[in-house]
Amino acid sequence: MPKIVLLGTGNVAHHLFQALGNQIIQVYGRNAENLNKFSSKTDTTSSTKFLRKADLYLLAVSDDAISDVSKQLSTVDGIVAHTSGSVSILALKSKRKAVFYPLQTFTEGRKLDFSNIPICLEAESEEDYRTLTELGESISKSVHRINSSQRKTLHLAAVFANNFNNHLFQISKELCEKENFDFNLLKPLIQETANKIDVMNPVDAQTGPAKRNDIQTMQQHLDGLENPRHKKIYQVISESIRKSYEEKL
Amino acid sequence: MPKIVLLGTGNVAHHLFQALGNQIIQVYGRNAENLNKFSSKTDTTSSTKFLRKADLYLLAVSDDAISDVSKQLSTVDGIVAHTSGSVSILALKSKRKAVFYPLQTFTEGRKLDFSNIPICLEAESEEDYRTLTELGESISKSVHRINSSQRKTLHLAAVFANNFNNHLFQISKELCEKENFDFNLLKPLIQETANKIDVMNPVDAQTGPAKRNDIQTMQQHLDGLENPRHKKIYQVISESIRKSYEEKL
Repeated sequence: MPKIVLLGTGNVAHHLFQALGNQIIQVYGRNAENLNKFSSKTDTTSSTKFLRKADLYLLAVSDDAISDVSKQLSTVDGIVAHTSGSVSILALKSKRKAVFYPLQTFTEGRKLDFSNIPICLEAESEEDYRTLTELGESISKSVHRINSSQRKTLHLAAVFANNFNNHLFQISKELCEKENFDFNLLKPLIQETANKIDVMNPVDAQTGPAKRNDIQTMQQHLDGLENPRHKKIYQVISESIRKSYEEKL
Repeated sequence: MPKIVLLGTGNVAHHLFQALGNQIIQVYGRNAENLNKFSSKTDTTSSTKFLRKADLYLLAVSDDAISDVSKQLSTVDGIVAHTSGSVSILALKSKRKAVFYPLQTFTEGRKLDFSNIPICLEAESEEDYRTLTELGESISKSVHRINSSQRKTLHLAAVFANNFNNHLFQISKELCEKENFDFNLLKPLIQETANKIDVMNPVDAQTGPAKRNDIQTMQQHLDGLENPRHKKIYQVISESIRKSYEEKL
């Protein structure tokens, strides 16, 4: 197993540390407070001058910082892998470039079972790809070779399935609060919505007024929405549902 | 426990029959093929003339048909309850009007655990409300008094949390298929998105480029979307996410 230096101290870094803790010999970070959270568990540094020699430098930094941080790794001999869904492998300025992208939403304080999280890998050499595959398979049953262009699409699909869904939960919760319901009333429905697609195609799972083109109910719903942004979302998604079933007729 | 005549033979009727089978003495439906699916289990009829005398007539028909079907029940002495999220109790033309709305998405062939499904009740008399509460509590731990106006908001919140989310899953799946990924790659993410809101507020669970106002990634995503309806959805939801965090600053 490779010796790893982890660069970054945010959510992704914390979750990767949980999964790969045994192999991580050092954590680098510029924010002293965040870095301090790792200091009882491993060696830490706030300067790239003091980075230790490792087989793999894992960058769990923000997308914007990947290029800059990797410039400071331009002379290291180990593999340099970023962990982002939307950044090309070519953004790295190191000698050996790679990507180690865990496809999951990482939130502070959540414990995650890494064994089900897809790890999407990319590397410039077959040798580095094999090293990362072995590392990925040591923590997950789901390891995949995905190139930069495919990864961008996967990240986009993840934005729809995760970020946008979560925003719809937020709108749903605001509506409940306006009428003094407990948002918990909707949780069995939300759980079933997610579970259902395990066994059926979302196209076949669709129900509701937009699919039926039930204009009266949709108008009532629009009248019930006060926030113009929520009205707009209601309109464009309903229209998209309606059209996608119309096309299937 | 009340004796029930169930009117309707669709998904909701099938699921209610699963839950309330012991009390259902007759099923009414106009579609002979659908009605036939119930005939080995209980008495069935395709004419309202032959409806049996019951304590409760449960209407699991389409929203548009509620008023018409209830007209044919204008002389019965039992409670007449519809099961819709978006129709007022006053749409019923019967003597004793009520609503028995199970807040869940019902899909053919899915087995559901009714014990967690919220049952939203409304009745014109306290006596009928008590009868329906007792019936609801015999199948679910989650029984609630909700008036017609509140129920409309709840249904609207459910459209965001279920119908719209499911459509986003569909878009996400189409994106995966375009690049020949298996949509299954996204399922751990989808599951975590739904699980996370059990322990945290969706506002705090939000991540992604729109929250960070990461214009470069959003522009890349828009360029990656071919379907103009998907572009539009991307834009309006991203804008809504961005604005809702801007307002919190």
